[in-house]
Amino acid sequence: MSRHVRNRSKKAGAAPGTLVHLGREKAGATKIDVIEYDATSLSKHHVTSLAQCQPIKSSPTVTWINVDGVSNVEILRQFGSCYGIHPLVLEDILATDQRSKVEDYDDYLYVVLKMIGFDETSGAITSEQVSLVLGSHYVLSFQEGLAGDVFEPVRVRLKNEKSRLRTSGPDMLLHALLDVIVDNYFLVLEKLAERIEEIEDELIEHPEGGTLHAIYEMKRDMLFLHKVVWPLREAIGRLQRRDSSLVNEQSLVYLRDLYGHAVQVLDTLETLRDALSGMVDIYLSSVSNRLNEVMKVLTIIATIFMPLSFIVGWYGMNFKNMPEYDWRYSYPTVLLIMAGIAVGMLVYFKRKGWIWKK
Amino acid sequence: MSRHVRNRSKKAGAAPGTLVHLGREKAGATKIDVIEYDATSLSKHHVTSLAQCQPIKSSPTVTWINVDGVSNVEILRQFGSCYGIHPLVLEDILATDQRSKVEDYDDYLYVVLKMIGFDETSGAITSEQVSLVLGSHYVLSFQEGLAGDVFEPVRVRLKNEKSRLRTSGPDMLLHALLDVIVDNYFLVLEKLAERIEEIEDELIEHPEGGTLHAIYEMKRDMLFLHKVVWPLREAIGRLQRRDSSLVNEQSLVYLRDLYGHAVQVLDTLETLRDALSGMVDIYLSSVSNRLNEVMKVLTIIATIFMPLSFIVGWYGMNFKNMPEYDWRYSYPTVLLIMAGIAVGMLVYFKRKGWIWKK
Amino acid sequence: MSRHVRNRSKKAGAAPGTLVHLGREKAGATKIDVIEYDATSLSKHHVTSLAQCQPIKSSPTVTWINVDGVSNVEILRQFGSCYGIHPLVLEDILATDQRSKVEDYDDYLYVVLKMIGFDETSGAITSEQVSLVLGSHYVLSFQEGLAGDVFEPVRVRLKNEKSRLRTSGPDMLLHALLDVIVDNYFLVLEKLAERIEEIEDELIEHPEGGTLHAIYEMKRDMLFLHKVVWPLREAIGRLQRRDSSLVNEQSLVYLRDLYGHAVQVLDTLETLRDALSGMVDIYLSSVSNRLNEVMKVLTIIATIFMPLSFIVGWYGMNFKNMPEYDWRYSYPTVLLIMAGIAVGMLVYFKRKGWIWKK
Amino acid sequence: MSRHVRNRSKKAGAAPGTLVHLGREKAGATKIDVIEYDATSLSKHHVTSLAQCQPIKSSPTVTWINVDGVSNVEILRQFGSCYGIHPLVLEDILATDQRSKVEDYDDYLYVVLKMIGFDETSGAITSEQVSLVLGSHYVLSFQEGLAGDVFEPVRVRLKNEKSRLRTSGPDMLLHALLDVIVDNYFLVLEKLAERIEEIEDELIEHPEGGTLHAIYEMKRDMLFLHKVVWPLREAIGRLQRRDSSLVNEQSLVYLRDLYGHAVQVLDTLETLRDALSGMVDIYLSSVSNRLNEVMKVLTIIATIFMPLSFIVGWYGMNFKNMPEYDWRYSYPTVLLIMAGIAVGMLVYFKRKGWIWKK
Amino acid sequence: MSRHVRNRSKKAGAAPGTLVHLGREKAGATKIDVIEYDATSLSKHHVTSLAQCQPIKSSPTVTWINVDGVSNVEILRQFGSCYGIHPLVLEDILATDQRSKVEDYDDYLYVVLKMIGFDETSGAITSEQVSLVLGSHYVLSFQEGLAGDVFEPVRVRLKNEKSRLRTSGPDMLLHALLDVIVDNYFLVLEKLAERIEEIEDELIEHPEGGTLHAIYEMKRDMLFLHKVVWPLREAIGRLQRRDSSLVNEQSLVYLRDLYGHAVQVLDTLETLRDALSGMVDIYLSSVSNRLNEVMKVLTIIATIFMPLSFIVGWYGMNFKNMPEYDWRYSYPTVLLIMAGIAVGMLVYFKRKGWIWKK
Repeated sequence: MSRHVRNRSKKAGAAPGTLVHLGREKAGATKIDVIEYDATSLSKHHVTSLAQCQPIKSSPTVTWINVDGVSNVEILRQFGSCYGIHPLVLEDILATDQRSKVEDYDDYLYVVLKMIGFDETSGAITSEQVSLVLGSHYVLSFQEGLAGDVFEPVRVRLKNEKSRLRTSGPDMLLHALLDVIVDNYFLVLEKLAERIEEIEDELIEHPEGGTLHAIYEMKRDMLFLHKVVWPLREAIGRLQRRDSSLVNEQSLVYLRDLYGHAVQVLDTLETLRDALSGMVDIYLSSVSNRLNEVMKVLTIIATIFMPLSFIVGWYGMNFKNMPEYDWRYSYPTVLLIMAGIAVGMLVYFKRKGWIWKK
Repeated sequence: MSRHVRNRSKKAGAAPGTLVHLGREKAGATKIDVIEYDATSLSKHHVTSLAQCQPIKSSPTVTWINVDGVSNVEILRQFGSCYGIHPLVLEDILATDQRSKVEDYDDYLYVVLKMIGFDETSGAITSEQVSLVLGSHYVLSFQEGLAGDVFEPVRVRLKNEKSRLRTSGPDMLLHALLDVIVDNYFLVLEKLAERIEEIEDELIEHPEGGTLHAIYEMKRDMLFLHKVVWPLREAIGRLQRRDSSLVNEQSLVYLRDLYGHAVQVLDTLETLRDALSGMVDIYLSSVSNRLNEVMKVLTIIATIFMPLSFIVGWYGMNFKNMPEYDWRYSYPTVLLIMAGIAVGMLVYFKRKGWIWKK
Repeated sequence: MSRHVRNRSKKAGAAPGTLVHLGREKAGATKIDVIEYDATSLSKHHVTSLAQCQPIKSSPTVTWINVDGVSNVEILRQFGSCYGIHPLVLEDILATDQRSKVEDYDDYLYVVLKMIGFDETSGAITSEQVSLVLGSHYVLSFQEGLAGDVFEPVRVRLKNEKSRLRTSGPDMLLHALLDVIVDNYFLVLEKLAERIEEIEDELIEHPEGGTLHAIYEMKRDMLFLHKVVWPLREAIGRLQRRDSSLVNEQSLVYLRDLYGHAVQVLDTLETLRDALSGMVDIYLSSVSNRLNEVMKVLTIIATIFMPLSFIVGWYGMNFKNMPEYDWRYSYPTVLLIMAGIAVGMLVYFKRKGWIWKK
Repeated sequence: MSRHVRNRSKKAGAAPGTLVHLGREKAGATKIDVIEYDATSLSKHHVTSLAQCQPIKSSPTVTWINVDGVSNVEILRQFGSCYGIHPLVLEDILATDQRSKVEDYDDYLYVVLKMIGFDETSGAITSEQVSLVLGSHYVLSFQEGLAGDVFEPVRVRLKNEKSRLRTSGPDMLLHALLDVIVDNYFLVLEKLAERIEEIEDELIEHPEGGTLHAIYEMKRDMLFLHKVVWPLREAIGRLQRRDSSLVNEQSLVYLRDLYGHAVQVLDTLETLRDALSGMVDIYLSSVSNRLNEVMKVLTIIATIFMPLSFIVGWYGMNFKNMPEYDWRYSYPTVLLIMAGIAVGMLVYFKRKGWIWKK
Repeated sequence: MSRHVRNRSKKAGAAPGTLVHLGREKAGATKIDVIEYDATSLSKHHVTSLAQCQPIKSSPTVTWINVDGVSNVEILRQFGSCYGIHPLVLEDILATDQRSKVEDYDDYLYVVLKMIGFDETSGAITSEQVSLVLGSHYVLSFQEGLAGDVFEPVRVRLKNEKSRLRTSGPDMLLHALLDVIVDNYFLVLEKLAERIEEIEDELIEHPEGGTLHAIYEMKRDMLFLHKVVWPLREAIGRLQRRDSSLVNEQSLVYLRDLYGHAVQVLDTLETLRDALSGMVDIYLSSVSNRLNEVMKVLTIIATIFMPLSFIVGWYGMNFKNMPEYDWRYSYPTVLLIMAGIAVGMLVYFKRKGWIWKK
């Protein structure tokens, strides 16, 4: 539970814009990669602090600065003063439990969303907050820096001189980053769909108490994803309705496309959730069916043996004047009667469909 | 499950507009049918590539090019350059898990939707993506090309010189194609309604564990259809509110009519879904009722024979001084008492309505 | 099920505006009643075809033509050409599974809705499609013509010279027709409410398996009505917001009143549906309660007689050296012990509230 | 059920504006109280008919006419002609199953709503329709007149010369009347909350079959109130957005306050409904738990006594050569074995937590 | 229940604006703290009444007056006349069951919301109404004064000369107060999440009847919070869309941030509620599973011992001519048969997975 309810006690009551890191600590130092490119050239270098702020900012190329790890409050402060970023934005970058959103600060756009992954070994969904800042000539990306990122395809495309990215502005770079993040949601959904299929097989073959727990675990994961994607869809929806001068008109069609992807993610999520709900019903009904089966076994046994036990008890009575005791064919007659009762009961149960028919 | 969650791994991270075919492969080569017509003439021919682009485009007639099979990326590219279609549209045509939508690119309208069918042998719903591009003088239709199409009635009407289609523009052709696709939904719904009726009969006569699974299979199909039709309704709704210069005013009333059909499909779907939900409740209640019935049989048997067994056990005791043993009428008296108990019990159960009354 | 999913196969793929009758066939010939009236005069006659189109149209009075039976496609075609009605409207009149709607064709308004009834003998809801066309000087009404209509009160009011209808335009006639149809919904709802009350009594006195089926039958009827009334409310809502020049301003207050009635029908429907939902819960809980009762009887019997049977079994053992056999008061002592056990058990169950307390 | 579905058969098919009283008959004659006031004077008198229409209307003071009992159609008609009230409004005043609404007829505002009460003896909610007409110098109030009214506090305030009501226009009087009616909803809700608490206690201490019925009765009452308050909230909401010249600007803040009260009533209703829903779940789960308890008793008894009965049965066998019969310590040994089995079983059940632990 | 339905009987029917305190009584006298500050100075003093109204109001600094305890109606009245506050606002301050809302009275803004806390000992949520009035140079805060407040961090920041609060207007002070209140919601949610985790553990390890009650208690708390936060989100949403001249443009970004927090609180609440719903299902299913387990034990015992008891009963019969009695190996043969039956049954149950497999 507490996984989804982050600890905010550290900050409660602090002034808004107070920079405090909320969230898991990244191991190792903060890494800053700077990529500068235009149609003809691309340069890439690592820096450790933003002392060299001015030269980067004034260059005529597109600059992409990717920051891996946001626990170093000092570096964030440097970015803030260098790029004129509002303290509330810096605060949001640090507090890693943000709801996906897009905020327009005229000079720059702030986008925050979750980058999700799937841990194959534990079967758990991992999630990491990514903050993107789009300025007139730059894109800043801030990752929590926990476990790599999904931006590699974008870096590869940037290296390719023929890529459209090289001739476009930073808005297309922002789109490219958002696009790979959303594409990655599909990969996670495929994993979840596979897992659901496994649970479904388990449900049909041998449902156990654990199956229900597994279903509810999945449901909770779905809910988590839903809470992540729903506001994202909204945010991209606002982005594509062009309310910022930072986004060129020809980029809008790409954002509309991206919006379509977010809607599809939601659709798929809902399909999976409905499937899970159906599985709960089937599980509960299979529990009832098994109870029925158990009760039938008990009833068949009791119904056959109770009358028989009564008869044998009868002839265990010690009355002096029970004429049957002395009659010669009593024993075989009683035997036949009991066999008749047993057969009669079996025929009755057979007709009711309780035996020899699943 | 995975049926509804398509594999996008092939493409994740690729640049937007990268043409990769996502979906099932069509067997055989891509077929291209070109139909050109005006009020007086109609010509029809097959081509294998679009080398002859220019002549087709410049003709003053209405041109309908139907492409059967979209796995050939090269042909798609030719269409793209010949008709000036945006790479993102081409990408959507190739990725066969699109949500139904209408997109207006000023020069042309892009419509994507599902064409569904019903496989009589397996009882499964088949679905195939159809992309339609409406230009000023042409309509392009791209089918996955898996199992025939539903456009035959349109072809027949085109051959008829008196048909209104012959004297109308390409917008009416688009309407005609959409209309047959939506009409086909009704046919599939009729099949589903028949299947639901069968399940209902099964439910009342002899419900089994399998029935519930069948109901949930149907529910999932319904959900799939809902996810297909809901955005379609939205898309046609936007179309009929006339936001494109490619659609003539007199065609709008036809689109409004089409919109009404889509709404009716949704209505029918909802009716069927509600019927299925009610059937789940009835199934579960019938399981409970059968448990009740089983328990009654058990209780009746136990309640009659336990006291009787106690009595015969009583007179199996070996105490020396049990005066009943020597008394002459003990045996018939005990017999009468036991008969009395048995009859009493039966009367009691009869009054409770447990026996001789269903 | 199939009752609510009409067969459209006859028409699938036909050109829009193709006139094909979909629905049940009316027995007997189509009847056409023409009523012409103004403040001072009223004439009424039957015609069999519309050969006499022109004279009717040009008269300065209000003309109401009621067509009973729509299976005669030829007559429909005559109306179409005589009153300039769009082929799609004619198609909708013929296809008797339309969703209630209002469509504005500038020269005339097209209203389609369901006229419902209640068959006392079968307890089923009957429904018949009524199409109304409001022109500048006329109202056309097309009924399926299955089982009479509900327009009699309107005819009576027309005959009355002092009636406001006589001095008003055709829009008030349209209102009058809609009004009697909606009023009739209340009558059907009253019947349903009575039937629900009967089921409720049945539920409390002696719930059976059939009760649940009856509840679900009712639920389905409710759903059907809801699907009929919901779009009707919407349609009347649009009508009363005055988007047609055919409706006078002073008629709007009447349409607003009518709208209020439609909302009330929906409200009542919802009340009835909620009542039915509660009844399902009560039914299921009563099934559980009866199971509990059965199990209690079984448990009481078993708990009393099992220990007693054990004791009498004990003294049926044949060990040589069982001193109790020879002891004089063994038999009465055992008797007392058994009586004590039985009484103890009964006291225990009494305390648990399992017996002598419902 | 039928309590909430009023009989409209009397009126079906009548012309709109036909005055027919629908609803329960008030005992006794219609009472008409006229109060006229301004800042300095207040006069109060009873009239029996509206023959004296003109003088009342033309007076410069605020006039409040309260009509107790609406079954006298003639008096209604007098009001209609005297104050120029539309026949449809008169019809709504007479039909006492109106949905709460506000209608603006330019010269006057028509407000209809329910005045509810709580009958302490039967625990039932009573409801009575109140119609209010606000004109430029008057307020008319029409009550069904069944069981007193809640307007006493308003009358008391009017008598007080310092009351703001005396110096305000009729719009504030309308507000005052609406305000006492809505305040009265809170009183009824408090009663319901008390009743729910009683049911809750009953549920925890000794739930019975009747408890569920009581819960559903309450749920139905809630639903009824919801249906009454929901449109009322809407109506007051429209009133406070000032769409009538009859309401002064400084009165709007009071209407906004009233709107807040209506929202609070809805909030409270929803809280109570959720509480009831939770109680249904707890009831059903307690039924299951009791079944579990019953089954445990049965299982414990059977599991202990079945093996013991088997053993004593064993030594009741009559085989000649059963060496145990002659062995000296057979009897005490068998006794010990049986004691061991009994103790073992009890330990087993104790471990399972079936006994000596609730 | 009644906790959430406050007693309004005291006030029903009173004139709007009548000042009556509704709610729990604060112990001790009302405390009034006055803080006046600008960028360079800060003064703080306590007053007991508002006799000194004029000087405070006219000072050029920002004045924050915090009133602890609202049961003293006289003091409220003084505030009303001193700051020109509308009687309806005063009435709302006194009635401590207000729905969170923002009201704009041109000269001042009125904000009312709940300040919540968590009582560690009882595990209950405490809630206290806070009313805030924002004027051009002042902020008034009215607390119920029950158990301290959460404003301490704001007081600390005000003392700090470098704090942005000192150089901003009263709108930033309002934001600061709202911000600490909303931040406090997160702390309470963390506590609830911990409690839910405890219940979850309890549910998995040893679910009892009490667990369900605990879950429903939590659900009710959630509902209460939802009802508190939902209108708060709405109110802040309206505030941040800037409809008051009292809020500066540069403060809007802070209000937008605050709005984001409120949305996050709602999101977290919904996550917790969904978790609780899942737990109800798991609880109910575990009850069913336990019933199944009990029934299996009973069935196994009965199925093994009933046939065995029948056999031993058989050889307790007293027929003279039962040849088995005299046959030498009868006894061991019967022994073997019985052992065979017992083993066979166990194998059967093992195969069915009823024993030796959980």
